[in-house]
Amino acid sequence: METMYAKLRLAMIGGGQGAFIGGVHRLAAALDGEYELVAGAFSSRAATSQATGQALGLAPARVYDSYQDLIAGELALPVDERVQVISIVTPNHLHFAPAKLALENGFDVVLDKPLTFSLAEARELAHIVQTTGRRLVLTHTYTGYPMVKEARALVAAGALGRLRKVYVEYPQGWLSTFVEGDASNKQAGWRTDPARSGLAGAMGDIGTHAFNLLEYVTGLRVEQLCADIRAVVPGRQLDDDGAVLLQLSEGVSGVLIATQVAAGEENNLRLRVYGELGGLDWQQADNNTLLVKWLDQPTEIRRTNAPYTSAAARHNARIPSGHPEGYLEAFANIYRNFALTLRAEAAGQPPTAEMLDFPGIAEGLRGMAFIEAVVASGQSDAKWTEFPAV
Amino acid sequence: METMYAKLRLAMIGGGQGAFIGGVHRLAAALDGEYELVAGAFSSRAATSQATGQALGLAPARVYDSYQDLIAGELALPVDERVQVISIVTPNHLHFAPAKLALENGFDVVLDKPLTFSLAEARELAHIVQTTGRRLVLTHTYTGYPMVKEARALVAAGALGRLRKVYVEYPQGWLSTFVEGDASNKQAGWRTDPARSGLAGAMGDIGTHAFNLLEYVTGLRVEQLCADIRAVVPGRQLDDDGAVLLQLSEGVSGVLIATQVAAGEENNLRLRVYGELGGLDWQQADNNTLLVKWLDQPTEIRRTNAPYTSAAARHNARIPSGHPEGYLEAFANIYRNFALTLRAEAAGQPPTAEMLDFPGIAEGLRGMAFIEAVVASGQSDAKWTEFPAV
Amino acid sequence: METMYAKLRLAMIGGGQGAFIGGVHRLAAALDGEYELVAGAFSSRAATSQATGQALGLAPARVYDSYQDLIAGELALPVDERVQVISIVTPNHLHFAPAKLALENGFDVVLDKPLTFSLAEARELAHIVQTTGRRLVLTHTYTGYPMVKEARALVAAGALGRLRKVYVEYPQGWLSTFVEGDASNKQAGWRTDPARSGLAGAMGDIGTHAFNLLEYVTGLRVEQLCADIRAVVPGRQLDDDGAVLLQLSEGVSGVLIATQVAAGEENNLRLRVYGELGGLDWQQADNNTLLVKWLDQPTEIRRTNAPYTSAAARHNARIPSGHPEGYLEAFANIYRNFALTLRAEAAGQPPTAEMLDFPGIAEGLRGMAFIEAVVASGQSDAKWTEFPAV
Amino acid sequence: METMYAKLRLAMIGGGQGAFIGGVHRLAAALDGEYELVAGAFSSRAATSQATGQALGLAPARVYDSYQDLIAGELALPVDERVQVISIVTPNHLHFAPAKLALENGFDVVLDKPLTFSLAEARELAHIVQTTGRRLVLTHTYTGYPMVKEARALVAAGALGRLRKVYVEYPQGWLSTFVEGDASNKQAGWRTDPARSGLAGAMGDIGTHAFNLLEYVTGLRVEQLCADIRAVVPGRQLDDDGAVLLQLSEGVSGVLIATQVAAGEENNLRLRVYGELGGLDWQQADNNTLLVKWLDQPTEIRRTNAPYTSAAARHNARIPSGHPEGYLEAFANIYRNFALTLRAEAAGQPPTAEMLDFPGIAEGLRGMAFIEAVVASGQSDAKWTEFPAV
Repeated sequence: METMYAKLRLAMIGGGQGAFIGGVHRLAAALDGEYELVAGAFSSRAATSQATGQALGLAPARVYDSYQDLIAGELALPVDERVQVISIVTPNHLHFAPAKLALENGFDVVLDKPLTFSLAEARELAHIVQTTGRRLVLTHTYTGYPMVKEARALVAAGALGRLRKVYVEYPQGWLSTFVEGDASNKQAGWRTDPARSGLAGAMGDIGTHAFNLLEYVTGLRVEQLCADIRAVVPGRQLDDDGAVLLQLSEGVSGVLIATQVAAGEENNLRLRVYGELGGLDWQQADNNTLLVKWLDQPTEIRRTNAPYTSAAARHNARIPSGHPEGYLEAFANIYRNFALTLRAEAAGQPPTAEMLDFPGIAEGLRGMAFIEAVVASGQSDAKWTEFPAV
Repeated sequence: METMYAKLRLAMIGGGQGAFIGGVHRLAAALDGEYELVAGAFSSRAATSQATGQALGLAPARVYDSYQDLIAGELALPVDERVQVISIVTPNHLHFAPAKLALENGFDVVLDKPLTFSLAEARELAHIVQTTGRRLVLTHTYTGYPMVKEARALVAAGALGRLRKVYVEYPQGWLSTFVEGDASNKQAGWRTDPARSGLAGAMGDIGTHAFNLLEYVTGLRVEQLCADIRAVVPGRQLDDDGAVLLQLSEGVSGVLIATQVAAGEENNLRLRVYGELGGLDWQQADNNTLLVKWLDQPTEIRRTNAPYTSAAARHNARIPSGHPEGYLEAFANIYRNFALTLRAEAAGQPPTAEMLDFPGIAEGLRGMAFIEAVVASGQSDAKWTEFPAV
Repeated sequence: METMYAKLRLAMIGGGQGAFIGGVHRLAAALDGEYELVAGAFSSRAATSQATGQALGLAPARVYDSYQDLIAGELALPVDERVQVISIVTPNHLHFAPAKLALENGFDVVLDKPLTFSLAEARELAHIVQTTGRRLVLTHTYTGYPMVKEARALVAAGALGRLRKVYVEYPQGWLSTFVEGDASNKQAGWRTDPARSGLAGAMGDIGTHAFNLLEYVTGLRVEQLCADIRAVVPGRQLDDDGAVLLQLSEGVSGVLIATQVAAGEENNLRLRVYGELGGLDWQQADNNTLLVKWLDQPTEIRRTNAPYTSAAARHNARIPSGHPEGYLEAFANIYRNFALTLRAEAAGQPPTAEMLDFPGIAEGLRGMAFIEAVVASGQSDAKWTEFPAV
Repeated sequence: METMYAKLRLAMIGGGQGAFIGGVHRLAAALDGEYELVAGAFSSRAATSQATGQALGLAPARVYDSYQDLIAGELALPVDERVQVISIVTPNHLHFAPAKLALENGFDVVLDKPLTFSLAEARELAHIVQTTGRRLVLTHTYTGYPMVKEARALVAAGALGRLRKVYVEYPQGWLSTFVEGDASNKQAGWRTDPARSGLAGAMGDIGTHAFNLLEYVTGLRVEQLCADIRAVVPGRQLDDDGAVLLQLSEGVSGVLIATQVAAGEENNLRLRVYGELGGLDWQQADNNTLLVKWLDQPTEIRRTNAPYTSAAARHNARIPSGHPEGYLEAFANIYRNFALTLRAEAAGQPPTAEMLDFPGIAEGLRGMAFIEAVVASGQSDAKWTEFPAV
């Protein structure tokens, strides 16, 4: 489980004090000892960046005032001191430019979801990844859970037979009031602002997670969709609630629900998949459990790191069954698999499938296509909207 | 809780040996001692009807070969021997005619859902109810649960504030294979047969329950819908799976899911309702619990017959909190409230709101309109289909 | 499921207005249509008895002022009008005398638990049952649940291997305050009164249920025990809380917990049984589920009336899996199996094992022995107290 | 949440490849970035120690062949390179000697539970802690969970009123077979060996966790106990199963259950506490939830990091409510609070109560006294055994 080499040198862009996801990235990167955070441009405000870097114990010389400075500064260092991986944890409108600069200058990149501000940017970034040959990982956290891996392995092995129906839902309640009216709420501020978040609100922020989880576990692809989205809270500029009917490959249909105005809900992502022979039910709130339902046989409770679970599930677990693993561990699995991949490639060895099991540019592209299709459908009177080719 | 008068004399049409819902009606009618089953026309096959009547201990003279015989035979008896209430538990295509005959001859009627074979029949039946002045109760079982009453009372009292979002889902798995190919499976046989079931399969059989539960608890009315329905199992003639986007009154939106091909699912009706201040979550599988969620306060677990529950909830419970009540008790609540209403009226007293709290012709009309609208939407390329005025 | 003959004529002793368990007996007896309540001596106060009988729609001539009058009055009726079964639902100190009189005059008896006021009375009643040859059923409700039957069948089939450990617990909270100080609380009044309840309070009222469930499911017998019991609420005369270490046959050990001062608990009876190969977990609050745990395999969720359950479990279920059955149904199973037994014997046929699957005099004797042993151990400084031979 | 200074330099004694708890300590120490592992004596076999150190990326000079070498080697380094904290994660018989040496040479110590091999050693170690003035933390993981902190805060605030009853249980199943017969199972090997584990097996390994949790949350102290312990699996030398009746301070009684032969159980530590006004229910398997039960009011579901939780609970949480935290986070809380205490003291500031909220020598002493008392009671015919004064 633990690192067996020198740690990868990591820099972070964004994640200054007051941000949420930057801290999560740091915890996730630290857990397995695969990375050492040595540099950062944590804020567009120099003082905030410096204060954050100091609090994190970084050398002042490695704390930069902008992402451009960071990349320039690191390039000026000897290769064996220079950071190897750059995590970009800024709001969506600030994903593309630093990612492009980092990739083009030889750094591997960790990017928070969704991939970019727009599908057009996403297409361009995909091209850059391809031409630079660098690695990019997109932190769709929820696919990092061991029992999500188990679900995917069961589907892939045909345990459910031919798939028929999928339900994915993601209710939250934290935007039930006009919290963006409070300037101190930075999370709500940028996530509800079209200038920083992009075309979609809830559908971009959490709908893309639900969409990614669905495609990851089932291996199916959404082909058409019918969306009903809206801004429920008065004054809000982007959707905070929506539901989407789905037509997937292989004739499967589905429903995707995402809302941030389900008052009293925390973060209850849930996926259900049904096939000819049985069904799967996984909920993030009880992430170490996967229910497997069968026609005319008792439902099974499968559990993280139990001896009967798949190799993929066990690869992403750390401690014996019955010792709960959680969100940070799932997040850390993405960081860890990315590190294992980079190390293998650095050693001239092909990464295994388990190492390569992290979301990347392809998943990011599909997520941006999902946003575009959902928003288009939401504005359309036609029942079905085609999913863009990506 | 228990009867305090002579029992109401009950006859049953349908429910012969091998049927499902007839036996449930008998158990539900028996529980509280409000009714005594004294007559029946249990099957269109005379031998089956007689055998059923004998098994139930009825006098042979009160076991009839047809519903017409039953009504004629009972009318020939003195008023104080004649049955007072007739339960009709036949397949959908055989609801209208016996109900019409019963009502027009002075009997009160219990009818299993959905109301009729078609919306046209439903409209006509509504007219008959109005002109005859008889009572009709429709056994939408799930609204009989005490914690569904509690949910409705909380919404009505404004505890959740203005409503925003509703989700209702009803997954079953029992039609996951082509069970109607087995002639001995009478349940599957008629429920998947357009000639006996009507326009819809799953949407008529269980979708109407979900729809009724949603409108009952929220007090809202569906105004537009967008349905995706299909027959998943090869060879099946009616829908066995579907999902519906809803536009409700007061600007509320919702999602309704009904499927009978969710392999491994039993009968998992669930309703969630969210308002500005909080949300409700009720599941039939844990029917004695209602979760009440609040913005920034702990979720509450409300329980059947607890001292803090509403009068409506307690009126529909029988035993102390912690002694589980179930499906038959919910079903019996419908029979009991109907009996209380009939007794009050017989005694020249106006029934209370609690007595009158059972589904009737209005709910039946809306259920049939729902079926028509869902099927129409399923065939339409337009996103939204208007809900018929009823 | 439903009666196929003339109903058994039932009388009730006790159960007047304001009582709890009498009403439950009436609901349970009514559900399956096996019994018709036709007579009663509902209270030692004639007016209460008459009012109760009238409310229940009984003929005034069949409502008696005392149990002696009831038995004399019924004996004076022709055999084919006379009641056949007498349910005794009085407080514990009034079990023995009416049961003795009923049995000795040829009636079969339903008795609420615990069997009698004392072990001495229990031994005498056992003798009377033997010499009269009449049937006696003791309503240990919880063994009537389908999934308790399933648990017992799994143990009996050796599915768990050799048993090792048993835990049974029964927390309630309704005696958390000195409710017996309120004269209108009749339930609390007699249950906390040594003159009416007997040697034990909580251990007699609910500890005997836990004990019965444990021995029923495991087939083991308690041989020694070590009890710590006490009256927690100031002023209370009988134990309201206790825990007991158990030594059972076959070298198995266990723990039994019963308390009525666990504030906030409803009625949470739970049994866990572990053997060499796996374990069982059943909770009354989720009575339609039995968890079956295995070494190194997924836990199974077994459900009422599922096709894979044992014949014993299915015999005690009424409706399809997923339609919750509850406490009244479990209670009704005891009444129903008793009726099936009486009918079979009346027809000269030996009752099947499934018919005979109800608690009787043997279980009653062991329950009274349990009470005596627990109270003796509670007063002893020795660690282990022998369980009396019965 | 994250470190704001240079990391504390950490060494580890024990935890070589193949061990379990050493890896957990490393993950827990890494998570918050408070520590950097820079030295270790990971095994009594030099080759294993070196291989482990290399795999962890340590400088070869800081990987030692014995704990004596480690302490000598580190003392030879300049103070600002020398490790500051030493984690001891060896089997129980190897706790005392390295802890003594570390403390006496000026190092602060992290010790895995139970404190020592015997109560006598524990008393001596307590003396050494006192005389050296160094800090010692004992990793009773379960008290690190946020909702355990919440439980303790509620009790301390008097929310439950005067306490009455406590139940703590800890069932595991991993020793259901004679796994110590497999030499490769190092975990089972030493934990079932009296020469390495001490007087007790399950009661020392997990009973002490249950005991610690109980005393931590309630603030009560066990005064007398009555234990029934045994080795269930043939050939096993130490107890693998037991139950203990407890007499606690303030007249409270309780039950403690610990078993490692509950086949199919993972690691299901659970605590329930009842007072005059309500009760608490916490389970490790659902660690982010605390149920709070009230007399005549709905049960509350309290959740990790929700805005209504206590400051103590929030101090020990990292991410928004609804993002599950788990076992490693609870473990890391102990490491983090220890680090915060050491830093505060190094800065000449008194640590706050929240910083000092970790188990230490006093808890370790009581745990060893518990082991001695349970084993003595297990061998005694007297009902009650006094808890040793410590």
